[in-house]
Amino acid sequence: MIGCGSMGGNMALLFAEHGITVSLNDPSEETMDQVLATAKKDGLQDQLQKHSSYKSLCKSLGSPKVFVFSLPHGTVGDSVVDGLHTYLSKGDIIIDASNENWQNTQRRQGKLVPQGVYYIGMGVSGGYQAARRGPSMCPGGEERALDIAMPLLRKVAAKDSQGNPCVAKAGTGGSGHYIKMIHNGIEHGMMSALAEAWQIMNLGLLMNYDDIAAEFDRWNGDGELRSTFLVGIGADICRQKDDQGRHVLSIVEDKVVQDVDGTEGTGIWSQLEAVRLHVPAPSLTTAHFVRLASAFRADRKRVKEAFGGQFPVQEWGEAKGDKGLVLESLRKAVYATFLASFVEGINIIDQADQENRWNVDYSAVIQIWRNGCIIKADYITEMLGKIFSEPHADLDLLHNKRVAQELKKTFPALQEVVLKGVEHNAIVPSLSATLEFLKYSTNTILPTQFYEAQMDYFGKHMFDLKSESAGKPETGKHHFEWKLA
Amino acid sequence: MIGCGSMGGNMALLFAEHGITVSLNDPSEETMDQVLATAKKDGLQDQLQKHSSYKSLCKSLGSPKVFVFSLPHGTVGDSVVDGLHTYLSKGDIIIDASNENWQNTQRRQGKLVPQGVYYIGMGVSGGYQAARRGPSMCPGGEERALDIAMPLLRKVAAKDSQGNPCVAKAGTGGSGHYIKMIHNGIEHGMMSALAEAWQIMNLGLLMNYDDIAAEFDRWNGDGELRSTFLVGIGADICRQKDDQGRHVLSIVEDKVVQDVDGTEGTGIWSQLEAVRLHVPAPSLTTAHFVRLASAFRADRKRVKEAFGGQFPVQEWGEAKGDKGLVLESLRKAVYATFLASFVEGINIIDQADQENRWNVDYSAVIQIWRNGCIIKADYITEMLGKIFSEPHADLDLLHNKRVAQELKKTFPALQEVVLKGVEHNAIVPSLSATLEFLKYSTNTILPTQFYEAQMDYFGKHMFDLKSESAGKPETGKHHFEWKLA
Repeated sequence: MIGCGSMGGNMALLFAEHGITVSLNDPSEETMDQVLATAKKDGLQDQLQKHSSYKSLCKSLGSPKVFVFSLPHGTVGDSVVDGLHTYLSKGDIIIDASNENWQNTQRRQGKLVPQGVYYIGMGVSGGYQAARRGPSMCPGGEERALDIAMPLLRKVAAKDSQGNPCVAKAGTGGSGHYIKMIHNGIEHGMMSALAEAWQIMNLGLLMNYDDIAAEFDRWNGDGELRSTFLVGIGADICRQKDDQGRHVLSIVEDKVVQDVDGTEGTGIWSQLEAVRLHVPAPSLTTAHFVRLASAFRADRKRVKEAFGGQFPVQEWGEAKGDKGLVLESLRKAVYATFLASFVEGINIIDQADQENRWNVDYSAVIQIWRNGCIIKADYITEMLGKIFSEPHADLDLLHNKRVAQELKKTFPALQEVVLKGVEHNAIVPSLSATLEFLKYSTNTILPTQFYEAQMDYFGKHMFDLKSESAGKPETGKHHFEWKLA
Repeated sequence: MIGCGSMGGNMALLFAEHGITVSLNDPSEETMDQVLATAKKDGLQDQLQKHSSYKSLCKSLGSPKVFVFSLPHGTVGDSVVDGLHTYLSKGDIIIDASNENWQNTQRRQGKLVPQGVYYIGMGVSGGYQAARRGPSMCPGGEERALDIAMPLLRKVAAKDSQGNPCVAKAGTGGSGHYIKMIHNGIEHGMMSALAEAWQIMNLGLLMNYDDIAAEFDRWNGDGELRSTFLVGIGADICRQKDDQGRHVLSIVEDKVVQDVDGTEGTGIWSQLEAVRLHVPAPSLTTAHFVRLASAFRADRKRVKEAFGGQFPVQEWGEAKGDKGLVLESLRKAVYATFLASFVEGINIIDQADQENRWNVDYSAVIQIWRNGCIIKADYITEMLGKIFSEPHADLDLLHNKRVAQELKKTFPALQEVVLKGVEHNAIVPSLSATLEFLKYSTNTILPTQFYEAQMDYFGKHMFDLKSESAGKPETGKHHFEWKLA
């Protein structure tokens, strides 16, 4: 295990617990000692040993040597590969379990080909606690390498409700890290929708944290949001009190900084990929922009001053009466945004897969997402699992009647929530972006008719006639000299 | 003039009209002949000559040689620079008037340094007609090179209402192309807002094209949208009829393909830059996603089928009665989105300027945008011109009281339009994204409070306490073991 921070350290303990002898390596002696101390507490001390040099580390391993990386993304992985280089033999396997950028992964895969060393890019989800209990894992790389690694990974992975491990061969090349990156993009959209709903309950419907927890429990118990990780922990979070009896949530500041400070790359890369590959992903990108705005809290204060105050969330009419119907609409609106986030994310993966010819196994991806990961949402993965198990499944899920039916069914609730949200100044960027996405994605009479005429006016961009268009994304055949006449 | 398509050809004629002798070069003989034929019609034939080889082209020029490029973005410019290389002498100037990516521009600037050849990256806006009449031009590069080029450029540039040319030294390096790229990003947001308003008038308020034209004329005549290029041509477009007496706009298909087919890079790069530089730019990105969705029209048809129909825009209550008030709200909502698009775009430029140390002259940028370009909007540029003429102007325009006042003033109208739009299924992605942007940018109680707690729960991401936060985008100091308790 190279890199023994909160993710790597916990994974090392997890491996140890499954009877695997683990050699630790980390630039910080202290970090390794912490893992060893925890191992001792858990009775696993015989399974782990620390190594300060690559030489000693490599000597401690059998053949083939199997390395697991848990490192910050970027150049660190390159340095480690360079450091290990002289000790690597044909058939050795590196499993990069970092949140690495897929392009770095592919570069290293290419670099190690001449030596016959396998490099698997494996996204690991579920956070530090799942790393200890059994995470969701998304490995991608050469088939033969995956076949060798799979028995080990299946042993420690999270298990779904049927007992099947949430790890599978996702595809070749950098697809494992790519799919984990998009998992995090989907997570953006889901988390934003849920946070917007939380604030509506709190400030619009004047529900206290315990009432919100009870509502989240209801959502998590049955229906479209049943057994959804984020909703489940949302209930825990709303209930949790500190030593002084205060709700912990009440003292948490509203800034999310992981994109801005560079510790987390996947959210940024997801948005870049959506734009690069021409995939509309407004639920994900909008959520990302809210995170960015949240990070610069001092800046928001200055803006608020310049505006002479914020636009405060107002009490909804239902706050004083029966909240049942509006909470049910809120639940459906959140579900619609969750599902739209999956649709948008899978569209991005599909485009990247076509470009890179990774041969992504979408049934495997859904299996990986069934448990142990942040975007776990049983109703959605059951539906998508069925869809992708069919031969030649259309990867644009908006084409799928079942998915369309779900989104159509929840559309009125989403519309109602956005309507009330806009009326009462609730902050609903992801919910409203999803509503608009559904409208323009299904519509064959878009405002872009006017837009296209404008571009032909000033840019001679050419247009198609309504009567003749095959609807392909190709330049039209007509230009009109709008100005001269 | 290297590259004699609709932009390059028209610029060549413009130079000729101002008494400058122009040597044409283009891989297509036919393209050059077309320019020469137009020159003959305009009595300019003595000013232009064509050259099929770089050798003959360079022989025809004085000293220093001044080249103007009007080429597709990407590798073409590199090939041309390579082709010219042996004929270049110290002091020669290349003015790249293509819509080139700023990074290509900077690469070529670096490449030509050893030879003492200047390379100016100059964004040109206004479309093919402005290229003939006098475009808005945004040159960036070495001060000395700009000083040499400026008299020539000032001669042919568009003039503002005071007669001052809309060209100025924007900054060093690739800043000229960068700022033109963001000009196009701002154009995205503005065009989408106006198209959304057009469709609301047409389908929501049941106004015919001529009535909409009259309303656009009213907007363009006075107030916050006065002398706005896009509104002005919008009126022309709504009125324009073809030979058969049909409104031309009525037969235009609703797909915009320039991003998807690669002919236009600036829109894509603008969104990538916003994300890369951590700048929330939802008005621009949302507009971009609508363009993408519009391009895949066949796809929208399939989605519509899967959904069993679209969500049709419904008639607004005002359609049958007095439309005056709602049209006034619509005008203000469009203005708010226009202004927000400028705010977001300038925030992106500011971040890039800090990163690249271009020393961007923001007063110059506003002067460039006063006329001849697509985002021309007199009320906005007059306001921003004043703001940037002050010493140490804050480049985040949301901090500026004047801008804040304008956005606050129009907020109720924007809210009303989005509310009615959502109620009646109007397609309002850019208007609603702007509304949400204003809400979350000014707010110090964001839903991300819950979001941050969730990230600490599963990712140990740490949080700040409300009481102690300085509001900086830095990792918090607290972690709570939410799960164990």
